[in-house]
Amino acid sequence: MPVLTDIATLATCPPEGGQGEIGLIENAALVWEGEEVAWVGSEVDVPEAYAAMPRESAEGRTVIPGLIDCHTHLAFGGWRAGEFEQKLLGTPYLEIARQGGGIASTVKATRAASETELHGRARGFLDEMLCLGVTTVECKSGYGLNMEDELKQLRVYRQLAEEGPQRVESTFLGAHVVPSEFKDDRAAYIRLLTDELIPQIAGEGLAHFCDVFVEDTAYSPDEARTILNVAATHGLGAKLHADQITDLGGGALAAELNAASADHLECISEESIAAMAKAGTVAVSLPLATLYLGQEPMPARRLIDAGVPVAVATDFNPGSAPSYDLHLALWLACTRQRMTPAEALKGATAYAAKAFLRNDIGSLQPVMKADFVVLDTTNINHWLYHFRPGTVVRTVIGGETVWAQSPSQLSS
Amino acid sequence: MPVLTDIATLATCPPEGGQGEIGLIENAALVWEGEEVAWVGSEVDVPEAYAAMPRESAEGRTVIPGLIDCHTHLAFGGWRAGEFEQKLLGTPYLEIARQGGGIASTVKATRAASETELHGRARGFLDEMLCLGVTTVECKSGYGLNMEDELKQLRVYRQLAEEGPQRVESTFLGAHVVPSEFKDDRAAYIRLLTDELIPQIAGEGLAHFCDVFVEDTAYSPDEARTILNVAATHGLGAKLHADQITDLGGGALAAELNAASADHLECISEESIAAMAKAGTVAVSLPLATLYLGQEPMPARRLIDAGVPVAVATDFNPGSAPSYDLHLALWLACTRQRMTPAEALKGATAYAAKAFLRNDIGSLQPVMKADFVVLDTTNINHWLYHFRPGTVVRTVIGGETVWAQSPSQLSS
Repeated sequence: MPVLTDIATLATCPPEGGQGEIGLIENAALVWEGEEVAWVGSEVDVPEAYAAMPRESAEGRTVIPGLIDCHTHLAFGGWRAGEFEQKLLGTPYLEIARQGGGIASTVKATRAASETELHGRARGFLDEMLCLGVTTVECKSGYGLNMEDELKQLRVYRQLAEEGPQRVESTFLGAHVVPSEFKDDRAAYIRLLTDELIPQIAGEGLAHFCDVFVEDTAYSPDEARTILNVAATHGLGAKLHADQITDLGGGALAAELNAASADHLECISEESIAAMAKAGTVAVSLPLATLYLGQEPMPARRLIDAGVPVAVATDFNPGSAPSYDLHLALWLACTRQRMTPAEALKGATAYAAKAFLRNDIGSLQPVMKADFVVLDTTNINHWLYHFRPGTVVRTVIGGETVWAQSPSQLSS
Repeated sequence: MPVLTDIATLATCPPEGGQGEIGLIENAALVWEGEEVAWVGSEVDVPEAYAAMPRESAEGRTVIPGLIDCHTHLAFGGWRAGEFEQKLLGTPYLEIARQGGGIASTVKATRAASETELHGRARGFLDEMLCLGVTTVECKSGYGLNMEDELKQLRVYRQLAEEGPQRVESTFLGAHVVPSEFKDDRAAYIRLLTDELIPQIAGEGLAHFCDVFVEDTAYSPDEARTILNVAATHGLGAKLHADQITDLGGGALAAELNAASADHLECISEESIAAMAKAGTVAVSLPLATLYLGQEPMPARRLIDAGVPVAVATDFNPGSAPSYDLHLALWLACTRQRMTPAEALKGATAYAAKAFLRNDIGSLQPVMKADFVVLDTTNINHWLYHFRPGTVVRTVIGGETVWAQSPSQLSS
């Protein structure tokens, strides 16, 4: 039962409370037993029962819950670096798509990749995310778009979940786009999703959630309703990619369907904001994607002011967000969306857990998982103000240290 | 005379040529002798004379010239993290200033700090910048604003330059703002600059350049002319902070005064762009500052299209740009300013050297300094597309490896 002391600032990030309420404790101590938090509070109040336990010093650093990236497309084939340059030079996306680029090229590369290849790449990404303090990652399928290749992506995620150390949450996104082979019969593809893929995936326990991309170029609100209602009968929770380019009332649809989250929301309407606030739906902001796309970000302040919990994630994918740097996404949530550092942190901890209905992670309170990060900074404001790489000193998952900086890497 | 082989891509970044011309060589080799580059080219063409020399493998990675951060305010006292949160919450800068914050608080903290304290902090920043591949740093004074404290800042820079390993270029920025004790007699402060500080600083060889912040809240174009003309008589080159908040014709003024660079330029006019293009003045873009300030960035594409060389730097300072992450600045130059990765790279190498008239660094060509960086990426586009920390594998200055990742840190 280790005791971590000499913590300058500890943020408990309670699930309850508003966006900026992160439960700061100065001069704190943290006690854990096995995989779980046993006690947290001021160092002077450490209970007698723990007084004789082995102590470790955080050396005046800051402790936060393990960061949760609640929206990624982690396993994919290929990259699209050439498109990045093309887009900067002004080539329209439709022209890139005509040349065989865009999401179709990722679908092609993902289908062509073996499960072993996809696993190896995703394994490398997760390993690098440890040094960013990311302890849980939500992973979407959606680059297979047929039975074989959607199952392949989801089996990669299951293997990663079994391997650890990160916790992996899988989401089925067969309704990402309509694959080209079904472009003249989209109803047939939707039947494939509802009649074959969803039952198979739910039966194998390969995902907890089903996600639909609601957009003019993807699925209509009615199609999303159909797909997510079937998913619900198979025990899969609902998530939505909503209101990214066009306001189709996706936020309100998420509220209506009792979705755990609606993600993107760059173009969300006031009506949808009100509906999400009433339903308690989490809004997932993806500021890396909006920056890469040259788009205005989700109006996070309006959502927060209306009482919608706002999570912040990377959207890591090879097209619109080829970065898994959640620290960078949080910094952009501050600089581009006027979220405070405390609000951004809550969006990648307690509210990120809420985006897939986990109530055992995202906060540092007794009986929650002992997932936490030691940061080389004296407080949360300073962490996202003085942006620099290498601020994570140690990453702990379920009470085990899974990554630590060597002493020579630490700044003075 | 070491030979580095198995370089997937090497960017020579020649001083001549347009913004996007970075002299890419695939399957390259690099030979250096002592502090200088001896030969660069395709690996198959390595001259007989070097064939027997000891070889090292770059293992299929990418090599670029050492990165040059050509605009920082490196040595300062205190931080302003609290202001960061205040500004996000909507507190106006004038209100923050009224509470004793803003630049005045940094001047106060810098005056209060000893030379040893300032040196220790700046030393730590430079050490961390090595792992970002930054081999040369331009450092401005301007938080002392009196004889004693301006000299103190510049002596810190001289000590850092003597210590190495980075090359340090010092710039005198006594004309940063008018200090509060002279607010009723700005002419007296300008006389202090022209009659006492500039002669003293030039006499001690403490700076090569003199910089003036031209802005409604700082110095007028006429005042800048006066100061920089005196500086020129003492052998100091000219630089300007120009057109950041207000278009005062700062770009054209820089061209008129034959300044090495005009920096910021978020509000530059077409007339100033044309004047800078004609004079060959370097425009230094500071995308971290504009993002932290919630401002539109310099219209880099318009400048590039007009033929102005655009450098990219961090502006590292505790107020508007509390980050020395030049990699991040380059990524923002792409995502926010539509510069291509090649154009951004040229802006932090050859054109950054040009921003302070150095012709021995910033490019990998024979007799230039052997300052280079090995990147864990296969090409320049991929480097700034797939943004992630830890891409620098090795940093070399004057032929000496001054920083290297341990093998365990490298991704697979």
